[in-house]
Amino acid sequence: MVMKVYGTVLSTPVMRVLTALYEKDLEFEFVPVDMRAGEHKKEHFLALNPFGQIPAFEDGDLKLFESRAITQYIAHVYADKGTPLVCEGKKMAPAGVWMEVEAHQFDPVASKLQMELVYKPKFGMATDAAVVEENELKLAKVLDVYEARLSQSKYMGGDCFTLVDLHHLPALTNLMGTPVKKLFDARPKVSAWAANIMARPAWAKVLAMKNQQ
Amino acid sequence: MVMKVYGTVLSTPVMRVLTALYEKDLEFEFVPVDMRAGEHKKEHFLALNPFGQIPAFEDGDLKLFESRAITQYIAHVYADKGTPLVCEGKKMAPAGVWMEVEAHQFDPVASKLQMELVYKPKFGMATDAAVVEENELKLAKVLDVYEARLSQSKYMGGDCFTLVDLHHLPALTNLMGTPVKKLFDARPKVSAWAANIMARPAWAKVLAMKNQQ
Ligand SMILES: N[C@@H](CCC(=O)N[C@@H](CS)C(=O)NCC(=O)O)C(=O)O
Ligand SMILES: N[C@@H](CCC(=O)N[C@@H](CS)C(=O)NCC(=O)O)C(=O)O
Repeated sequence: MVMKVYGTVLSTPVMRVLTALYEKDLEFEFVPVDMRAGEHKKEHFLALNPFGQIPAFEDGDLKLFESRAITQYIAHVYADKGTPLVCEGKKMAPAGVWMEVEAHQFDPVASKLQMELVYKPKFGMATDAAVVEENELKLAKVLDVYEARLSQSKYMGGDCFTLVDLHHLPALTNLMGTPVKKLFDARPKVSAWAANIMARPAWAKVLAMKNQQ
Repeated sequence: MVMKVYGTVLSTPVMRVLTALYEKDLEFEFVPVDMRAGEHKKEHFLALNPFGQIPAFEDGDLKLFESRAITQYIAHVYADKGTPLVCEGKKMAPAGVWMEVEAHQFDPVASKLQMELVYKPKFGMATDAAVVEENELKLAKVLDVYEARLSQSKYMGGDCFTLVDLHHLPALTNLMGTPVKKLFDARPKVSAWAANIMARPAWAKVLAMKNQQ
């Protein structure tokens, strides 16, 4: 039975999962969820994710949710397919640190900036300049740390492309289409890293899915 | 060389790391960080954690930060000591989901409630009743999912005590000392689970350290 991903391609957590599947060259079925109709709060969806959020994921009998748990599952269970996505052994500990950094330092700030600069304009809502300013300052500090990190290793998790980098891709690409791009451009290691990971064929496939919408 | 934990025992992320070390029966040195003096933003501390946050951790040459990355490191590298803290094999995937749930569904809501009901009163600041109300509603929904989860397995990550449960302990215990306790009490499986994990000897040792402050 082929794996199933439930969601919409506009959702950054869903895009994380799709990217992992393309990196691994795995077959899967994409099952659209009609968020406007509130499908994610209906019983059949809550059986997949009791929090009523996308993505949800099935591999045979196994039902998973939370994007980063799904990508970890894919990386470990399909370890021998496509891109490795994890660095082995001793390197695992630092990768674990930067995995948490994406989730707790980068993503909360990036989410607020995407809300103001990507989603609100799209739905005709006004951007809150104070929120943008506050979070640009926070993002600048995070990217300073990234610049130092990327002076020591080519990728955020270590010397090879891993889930750490992959988890950044959706928000990173969204922000690159906003004035926040300047914060990345001002940091040479960060902007080289961003260009490098955004050029991955797996990511191009996810963007193609998004553009077909 | 003995492991070192840098921080203050009042910090919930620091308490997570201390609990993991006690569960594993590992020797460590606790190095207090003087937050009031801004020690966490000084150069020697930024070399341990470039984000200037506690906890920071050292095991020989290895420097780590982010509480959940440190506990994962301890659980995996010292797998053969004390409490296992991870369930092996097939069970790992669901545990991964609930690990993310703690970080992305429980902790953000619990943090806001702790700010209003624990930290603000402690520093003589007024509690914002609207924030409390909003987050009590959110926590109630999270705990409804937990109640269903704990009807299927004794612990949040599966049939044994793991990092998933451990990561909840600091915020959970703080909230149990506030009116939010009623939300736990109203759910039999959740309150039995809370009582069970709060009674662990490793957790008692962390609370004893806190009380010595
Ligand atoms: N931490 C979750 C976040 C999932 C999430 O926030 N999904 C949004 C769409 S991007 C959603 O389903 N929101 C609907 C809701 O929360 O009711 C993950 O990484 O999978
Ligand atoms: N996600 C981090 C959070 C660490 C954190 O927020 N630490 C607080 C104390 S509880 C801190 O150091 N705050 C000072 C600051 O952010 O400047 C972890 O789990 O370790």
